Amino acid sequence: MSILETDFIDALKKLSIKYQPPHLLVGIGDDTAVLKKPEHNLLFAADMLMDGTHFKLNDIDPKLIGRKALAVNLSDIAAMGGRPIAVTVSLAVPETIDPAVPLKIMEGIFALAKTYNVAVSGGDTNVWKHPLVIDVAVIGEVSAKGPVLRSGARPGDHIFVTGPLGLSIHGKHLSFEPRLNEAQFLHEHYNLTSMIDISDGLAKDLRFVLAASRCGAVLNEAQIPCSLDENGKRCSVEQALSDGEDFELCFTVSSEDAKRLKSDIRYPGVDLFDIGIITAEQGFRFETGEEIRLMGYVHGVKGVL
Amino acid sequence: MSILETDFIDALKKLSIKYQPPHLLVGIGDDTAVLKKPEHNLLFAADMLMDGTHFKLNDIDPKLIGRKALAVNLSDIAAMGGRPIAVTVSLAVPETIDPAVPLKIMEGIFALAKTYNVAVSGGDTNVWKHPLVIDVAVIGEVSAKGPVLRSGARPGDHIFVTGPLGLSIHGKHLSFEPRLNEAQFLHEHYNLTSMIDISDGLAKDLRFVLAASRCGAVLNEAQIPCSLDENGKRCSVEQALSDGEDFELCFTVSSEDAKRLKSDIRYPGVDLFDIGIITAEQGFRFETGEEIRLMGYVHGVKGVL
Repeated sequence: MSILETDFIDALKKLSIKYQPPHLLVGIGDDTAVLKKPEHNLLFAADMLMDGTHFKLNDIDPKLIGRKALAVNLSDIAAMGGRPIAVTVSLAVPETIDPAVPLKIMEGIFALAKTYNVAVSGGDTNVWKHPLVIDVAVIGEVSAKGPVLRSGARPGDHIFVTGPLGLSIHGKHLSFEPRLNEAQFLHEHYNLTSMIDISDGLAKDLRFVLAASRCGAVLNEAQIPCSLDENGKRCSVEQALSDGEDFELCFTVSSEDAKRLKSDIRYPGVDLFDIGIITAEQGFRFETGEEIRLMGYVHGVKGVL
Repeated sequence: MSILETDFIDALKKLSIKYQPPHLLVGIGDDTAVLKKPEHNLLFAADMLMDGTHFKLNDIDPKLIGRKALAVNLSDIAAMGGRPIAVTVSLAVPETIDPAVPLKIMEGIFALAKTYNVAVSGGDTNVWKHPLVIDVAVIGEVSAKGPVLRSGARPGDHIFVTGPLGLSIHGKHLSFEPRLNEAQFLHEHYNLTSMIDISDGLAKDLRFVLAASRCGAVLNEAQIPCSLDENGKRCSVEQALSDGEDFELCFTVSSEDAKRLKSDIRYPGVDLFDIGIITAEQGFRFETGEEIRLMGYVHGVKGVL
């Protein structure tokens, strides 16, 4: 794999020169990167994607793998109402891989990173006999208003989602736009009482908010935005609540803020759906009173650490 | 793997309560961690370890795997003269694993993290059908004097290493102490012109310093500290220069600083070896004039990104 070794370093350095923001003071090529001190408290998270679980290496453009590996992390920063600063990228690469593939993965990362002014500041690359693994760790900073946690939802708050849910596996899981701009606008102009990104289905992720906020929720089934498939057919509410990898944001605001938001023409996103209400009473129900038993996407222990 | 899912989260939260430092403002359980803003510029790096390459899961205490995964990252922070702040830990866990194993790995991480006041602030855990992968990303901050780069070595500087080299595979690669205290002392009291941690053999890693600093080096073969094996037999100079995973620091200082350092009884480390001189002339030689052709440990593209 010596060709990979030399070419990969040279190619990464070229990508780095082309794409990197000025807050990366020392980039690839020392023991660690050096980044300009942020103004506010830090955000820090990581997401690991594996061939066969989160993507199929043989079936898709490697740039989309890199793009996704970064985008899922940016979605976490968005869910805190923060701004991303830098990422590390660690790769375990199968020894039989075409050396162009890891480079294309990195190109996908650098391209999306540039869009959001994120430094690709380092990482690690190893070769082995098993499938591709890619782990991206992200540093961000909170806004001047602080982070938006999962724990602040209050009874009477309205529950919003930033886009249609379900069927992400048909393609959106590779091409979604992390809702950074939407989150920053919302956090700046409204009092977001809680926020989470929907990675394992709304039914599962909203439950994290309810548990952290010690309250319940009633969803208006008719208002839940169900994605359209390739034939223009809307998916079921079950799919909208259970399918994984929507990467839309779910947030809560007071009823006053909800009213104001629904007529706010400055909102930079495309869609916004007011899908339910936070209740003092524990439990998770539709307006009909029917309990929501769907548990979202279940897989190993993803997202829990 | 549902037992793992529930127990793992609960156990991690308990570990987190027991071990975490106050600069972790929001820990495991939200979309990202929140960390107190650092005083100085940030350091950021990651290292990925894989079963079969960096450790053998079936042969060793899983706590040592976790310890190593953190220690290699702390070694990178040490090499910049910095202070570690927080890590994320991402795991790809084989589905056949005993659920106690990933928890022991995390215990090894938490225990070493506590020693150096590092927050274990989040990450990701996934289950799959392939060998264990663990990726740790670390945030640190530079000291008030700034980072120590690889690029500042000057002709006439003395080259030091912080401990014996070679034979790490016999055990030190799992139990080494990251040279954080030594590096912080040295950086505070001396003008370190360059520093690197020796992960792929001195012959390889010192070459990175020489390339970055655009100079050469002459090593005094007799002064190179060769580790002792289990029988008290000293390893060869070839092994000392080529074996991987020493995780000692290699640094350069002026001849005046070298003289002062060698009689400095305050130095907190055990060993310190003055092994050679930086030269204006490019090249890498022993004092005899013999060119050093050893290339250190070669593996895939580790450490290059």
